[in-house]
Amino acid sequence: MKKSLGPRTIAYPHPVFLVGSYDAEGQPNLAAVAWGGICCSKPPMVAVSLRAATHTHGSILLNRAFTVCIPDRAHLREADHVGIYSGRDRNKFAHLGLTEVRSDLVDAPYAAEFPLVLECRLAHVHELGLHTQFVGEILDTKADEAALNEKGFPDMGLVDPLAYSTGDSAYYVIGERVGGAFSVGKDQDPS
Amino acid sequence: MKKSLGPRTIAYPHPVFLVGSYDAEGQPNLAAVAWGGICCSKPPMVAVSLRAATHTHGSILLNRAFTVCIPDRAHLREADHVGIYSGRDRNKFAHLGLTEVRSDLVDAPYAAEFPLVLECRLAHVHELGLHTQFVGEILDTKADEAALNEKGFPDMGLVDPLAYSTGDSAYYVIGERVGGAFSVGKDQDPS
Repeated sequence: MKKSLGPRTIAYPHPVFLVGSYDAEGQPNLAAVAWGGICCSKPPMVAVSLRAATHTHGSILLNRAFTVCIPDRAHLREADHVGIYSGRDRNKFAHLGLTEVRSDLVDAPYAAEFPLVLECRLAHVHELGLHTQFVGEILDTKADEAALNEKGFPDMGLVDPLAYSTGDSAYYVIGERVGGAFSVGKDQDPS
Repeated sequence: MKKSLGPRTIAYPHPVFLVGSYDAEGQPNLAAVAWGGICCSKPPMVAVSLRAATHTHGSILLNRAFTVCIPDRAHLREADHVGIYSGRDRNKFAHLGLTEVRSDLVDAPYAAEFPLVLECRLAHVHELGLHTQFVGEILDTKADEAALNEKGFPDMGLVDPLAYSTGDSAYYVIGERVGGAFSVGKDQDPS
């Protein structure tokens, strides 16, 4: 028998996305988002949900663009900081000593220090309730060389991203690789 | 300098959701979904994206309901199996020996063996391209007692979920807890 916990927002693993945008004054900002993920393969799209009260909510609507930065284990402190303070009150890039890079594809910034970045053009806006879901078309994916495998793709193990746990309000890292997809679950050959 | 990889669907960590539904014949089915995540806090909502060609796509539209099951490390083989075979060709519950439980809240099944389950009423359908995004309002969250911490909430470390890596097409488990949220990134007190 399972225990009923009521309607709750627990669907592990939750990502730790840092969403980059420029505000009306042109100041770069980062917002921490755990409510999001890839939502379409063609065209490639990613969804991030933000409350209307956040500074980034208005910035995305203004510029119709955002980035999704994936912070790694080495930037745990910076990722958490981004989720605590508002871009209305401080320039988080400057405060954290992060290197602002202006996307060459969309009107949004990212930080050079994070190993993986998606540059997105705003494609859809879905009002869901407390959160607005912004769906971005991914125009480019940029990664550090150190995060690429021998085929030139970023493995999760090499990116070393964070994951967020609502139950204990904590960050975890990714652990070991336990099996190949579309492989470990195949029917056994009757031999 | 980062390397440009083009528009790609890489935003780690990707979840491994097994989406439960009944088809037109009333047969229970599970679909593997890595494109999804929580998308609203009030009301609590979760998004899962599926191609129109999948069996589950029609089942969700038919019953306006689905479950999201979170498989753990012990059910890696079952999770991968769900992503390989179609519910058009086999009853995956029967084939895998999973215990079908009919939700008491929505017209959808889940498997008793998975530690965490969300029961959802279809709230929104967003046609994005190759994928349709189904947004479900979470009516209840059910968890195994073993996944609950001392406060009665499921910690990610206790649920022990899988994560999917597109770069190497592989599953990973969650690793160590590295810090408390809204804590490790606070400004230091000037003392």
